[in-house]
Amino acid sequence: MTRQPKRSNSTRIDRSPLSERQIIQKLRRVGALRHSTAGLRVGIGDDAALFVPRLGFQTVLTCDWFLEGTHFLRDKHPPDSVGWKCLARAVSDIAAMGGAPRCFLLSLALPPSHVGAWLDEFLSGLRRAQRRLGCVLAGGDTTTSDRILIQVTVVGEVRSGKAVLRSGAKPGDAVFVSGRLGEAELGLRLLRSRKRIDRADPRLRKHLYPEPQLRLGLWLAQKRLATAMMDLSDGLSTDLARLCAASRVGARIEAGRVPLPFHDSIEQNRERQIEPLHLPLHGGDDYELLFTVSATNLRRVPKSFGGVRLTQIGVITRERTLHLLAADGSKKDLVPGGWDPFRAAR
Amino acid sequence: MTRQPKRSNSTRIDRSPLSERQIIQKLRRVGALRHSTAGLRVGIGDDAALFVPRLGFQTVLTCDWFLEGTHFLRDKHPPDSVGWKCLARAVSDIAAMGGAPRCFLLSLALPPSHVGAWLDEFLSGLRRAQRRLGCVLAGGDTTTSDRILIQVTVVGEVRSGKAVLRSGAKPGDAVFVSGRLGEAELGLRLLRSRKRIDRADPRLRKHLYPEPQLRLGLWLAQKRLATAMMDLSDGLSTDLARLCAASRVGARIEAGRVPLPFHDSIEQNRERQIEPLHLPLHGGDDYELLFTVSATNLRRVPKSFGGVRLTQIGVITRERTLHLLAADGSKKDLVPGGWDPFRAAR
Repeated sequence: MTRQPKRSNSTRIDRSPLSERQIIQKLRRVGALRHSTAGLRVGIGDDAALFVPRLGFQTVLTCDWFLEGTHFLRDKHPPDSVGWKCLARAVSDIAAMGGAPRCFLLSLALPPSHVGAWLDEFLSGLRRAQRRLGCVLAGGDTTTSDRILIQVTVVGEVRSGKAVLRSGAKPGDAVFVSGRLGEAELGLRLLRSRKRIDRADPRLRKHLYPEPQLRLGLWLAQKRLATAMMDLSDGLSTDLARLCAASRVGARIEAGRVPLPFHDSIEQNRERQIEPLHLPLHGGDDYELLFTVSATNLRRVPKSFGGVRLTQIGVITRERTLHLLAADGSKKDLVPGGWDPFRAAR
Repeated sequence: MTRQPKRSNSTRIDRSPLSERQIIQKLRRVGALRHSTAGLRVGIGDDAALFVPRLGFQTVLTCDWFLEGTHFLRDKHPPDSVGWKCLARAVSDIAAMGGAPRCFLLSLALPPSHVGAWLDEFLSGLRRAQRRLGCVLAGGDTTTSDRILIQVTVVGEVRSGKAVLRSGAKPGDAVFVSGRLGEAELGLRLLRSRKRIDRADPRLRKHLYPEPQLRLGLWLAQKRLATAMMDLSDGLSTDLARLCAASRVGARIEAGRVPLPFHDSIEQNRERQIEPLHLPLHGGDDYELLFTVSATNLRRVPKSFGGVRLTQIGVITRERTLHLLAADGSKKDLVPGGWDPFRAAR
């Protein structure tokens, strides 16, 4: 409301800049999808959205920043990947509670140069994610900025009493991860090293278009198989430390069991001088699930679920430390080496 | 997750920068208040917050940007005002639906220089607003940025079927506003013209510490008095146009009835060469309520409610135009002149 002139990107000013109302109309077309199935009585266009909660369910609330320069690069990331990913990564938090997403709010600040073609491509990726994840745009806020600022809030639901928290892991529980770890970080490294990007390159898929493990999270919660659960967004070493801190336990991880990236080989890593386990242990953005299962339920966990591998990588310990066991039996501390924006900024 | 070095404010680097986890601990102390009364089963610290909706209520969802340079000025606005206002203005949207706020999510991106004293003062203002508005911090997301970026999502509740939308105004309905208009804009102008700021200056109160009209909104909804309602955030001329567009009607406003700022006089405005009605018609940030009442219910609207004046300023018309009637009976178009960030940026 302060109305001082904004610094705008002067190199690519759109020839026909749109007003806020026109941008909201573009967003309204995205939100027009399946209001009733999402439980929405009022969506975009009023002071607030109205959501009708289902009987017997609790509401799951989560939000995520997605900022140019911090979470994506304007010149590297295709706009439709930005649209897809800003929603997918927030929905991943709902999956990690064992819930299902219902609707979301989008806060968008754009340079005037980006309300044309860039916004259209962004919304196309967002629309695809919305359909895929069953999560409808219910409202938001738009303004200008010289950098692209995105914030997504997702509203989901979980059957009362079925939510899986980070705090339920017990000593002796097995530690599982879904999928393969480090592929997203590998994709980011490829993306940054290339001048031209092939969106269809399978090695970039996990970084550009991550798929939150919604069905797996829901299943683990409904079957009461997971004693604790969270999604892997900042790297296994960092996120496991969080789960253990919340549960007041420790963990021992077997290095040889950690599932490595598919689209890579130890040779390629050697060429790039990356220690083979570095990406799987510390790479962020995988959006796989990390969960624990009690010894008595261990045999009920399948080898894979809906095509996604489930791997036991270690065990929860009473001693509140994180250890990594090598193949030769040697043991070392697993030090959180994942993403902390405040450490990175120093 | 891209990890390139951030540009940080190099002039005021905090001596003891805090990690993300430490910032979350500061936020957790804010959120520790009254979890159960807010309907929260899980707050800050897990993948998502868990909110238990009340039977017979619908969920109201709204979000607002609050960005340095766009919505506040780092060097002018006291941090505790930033904390108060970022929550108060989002809660105002809940008031405008006739709902009550329950909890909120805070997305915060701060320069490393601002995670010490600035953050503490900000949180003190936020905590005061939280107590005053009955709205508890349930979660959020934190990261770094060279500018202060704030986004607030508020979750409220409204009794099923009682929400008041923008779209219900009918020709012949009376148009009302609460309080006085233009005071916040006047406060902003004072703030910008001063080197030193006296937070206690009553002329700055409405701009620095706005109070959303929660009790009034709730009462108008429960008594089914308002046929349409919204909050005045971007100026009467802009917001009235939105209400009329949603209701597919027009309006005729009587210039002489528009409530002028209390802390000003026509003489002062003359000195500043501001047309007396300019601020009340086009000034933003008032967070008063704009609502319409059918002719049959007109006598049920009191002159004031809880110390806040309620003023009939005009009438809804079938003709879909906005007119301003002067004291001499002359009529002119009321052109939306309020805040549109995309127009302002051109």
